[in-house]
Amino acid sequence: MKRIESLKNERVKKWKKLHTKRGREQQGLFLVEGEHLVEEALKSNWLVSTIITNTTISIPFSGEVIQVNDSVLKELSRTETPQGMIAVCQRKELCQPADLTGVYVILDRIQDPGNLGTIIRTALAAGATAVVVGTGSVDVFNDKVIRSTQGAFFHIPVYEGGLEDWFNAFEQAKIPVFGTSLLEAIPYSEVEKTSQFALLLGNEGDGVGEEWLKRTNKNLYIPQNPKAESLNVAVASGILLYSLKSDLATKD
Amino acid sequence: MKRIESLKNERVKKWKKLHTKRGREQQGLFLVEGEHLVEEALKSNWLVSTIITNTTISIPFSGEVIQVNDSVLKELSRTETPQGMIAVCQRKELCQPADLTGVYVILDRIQDPGNLGTIIRTALAAGATAVVVGTGSVDVFNDKVIRSTQGAFFHIPVYEGGLEDWFNAFEQAKIPVFGTSLLEAIPYSEVEKTSQFALLLGNEGDGVGEEWLKRTNKNLYIPQNPKAESLNVAVASGILLYSLKSDLATKD
Repeated sequence: MKRIESLKNERVKKWKKLHTKRGREQQGLFLVEGEHLVEEALKSNWLVSTIITNTTISIPFSGEVIQVNDSVLKELSRTETPQGMIAVCQRKELCQPADLTGVYVILDRIQDPGNLGTIIRTALAAGATAVVVGTGSVDVFNDKVIRSTQGAFFHIPVYEGGLEDWFNAFEQAKIPVFGTSLLEAIPYSEVEKTSQFALLLGNEGDGVGEEWLKRTNKNLYIPQNPKAESLNVAVASGILLYSLKSDLATKD
Repeated sequence: MKRIESLKNERVKKWKKLHTKRGREQQGLFLVEGEHLVEEALKSNWLVSTIITNTTISIPFSGEVIQVNDSVLKELSRTETPQGMIAVCQRKELCQPADLTGVYVILDRIQDPGNLGTIIRTALAAGATAVVVGTGSVDVFNDKVIRSTQGAFFHIPVYEGGLEDWFNAFEQAKIPVFGTSLLEAIPYSEVEKTSQFALLLGNEGDGVGEEWLKRTNKNLYIPQNPKAESLNVAVASGILLYSLKSDLATKD
């Protein structure tokens, strides 16, 4: 087993660059921290190339394991209390599939990594087919996004890119798109449960952009106590997915 | 208008102690940061004693305003980019009211301040009467809790304390308590909508404690894709409140 103890080590410097979006794109890699998340990555179809740890690992893993000291681990960690294990995973860019089926969550300019991660986690739990993260959103390979998914990231496809192609594809597949808006919208409870739809949620401050709201089949709102200003977007995703989706997956 | 420019100023030192639970309890005060939250506090029945700012304030406020420089503001701020305005507010401890009515959210050992804040925000939006934060949960006056409520904190009563008295009170008021559990529970959708109930949610890792699950009227679960491990507790609060509550408040 290799051992690295210096912060000046070239590989440590390279891994550290994975803390930025640019570094992740250039190297085609991203970091996953903590035993639980690393296990979820290993159980999935994502490729883990290296595990970096300051202890012994009990997870079966045939790839490269690198032992480091506490200071190297701390340097690579993005949590306040480093969790003893970081995996270097290979990115993959998913292409829009030819056939669309089921339930999709589409996101327009989501900024908060915790919100994005929690929406991905909620989409998996609710049995959605995939999450589409529109241009202008936080990077899906951001460490806090992945951490907030609690592992769901590895078990549901997450697409990135422009929403235009997706709107065209949903139209062609006759999958209705439900936007979310406080204006010119109907209460979500007026929509009958259905097994195929795309739910469009928007930016934490601005909501969904006008250009997309015009292209939806219906726009929905969640009735609220007038003393309240708004709901958190991840909470809204849960309320809407569970209310609109007809057949909650109960088996794999 | 007073001006304070030194980090060694006695008042600055005292305010800084409000970053800890102990300091808040000893002084009977707490801090609220950012113009939006300060405005929400001023609009509410909470008492703002002092506003600390490094700019001029445009909010009508008849109390004490203290001008500070950037370094003092930074010292008192708990956000990465200080927002120019911090209010010192007076704590109040609420006592359990004699008559219970409507919908309550009861929390058993919630640890994450973002989750607690988001649950309070969701409870207000869904028209709940109050939130009860059980012993062993994160301090409700924690800055991140208040920030995550997005101002909802000032518009819905949040009680702290042991859950025992609340269970007794719900029993006496004949308000059913719905626990959340993955074991010996029914799908939430089997419960008819109702206007009076208490929803019990638990710790992020452990869920609701056994001792409380035994005392509920029914325990509910949210069906999930088996690939998913769990839902975020704030998301779960939204799904359950919106599904169980019969009359969503649409007026004040």
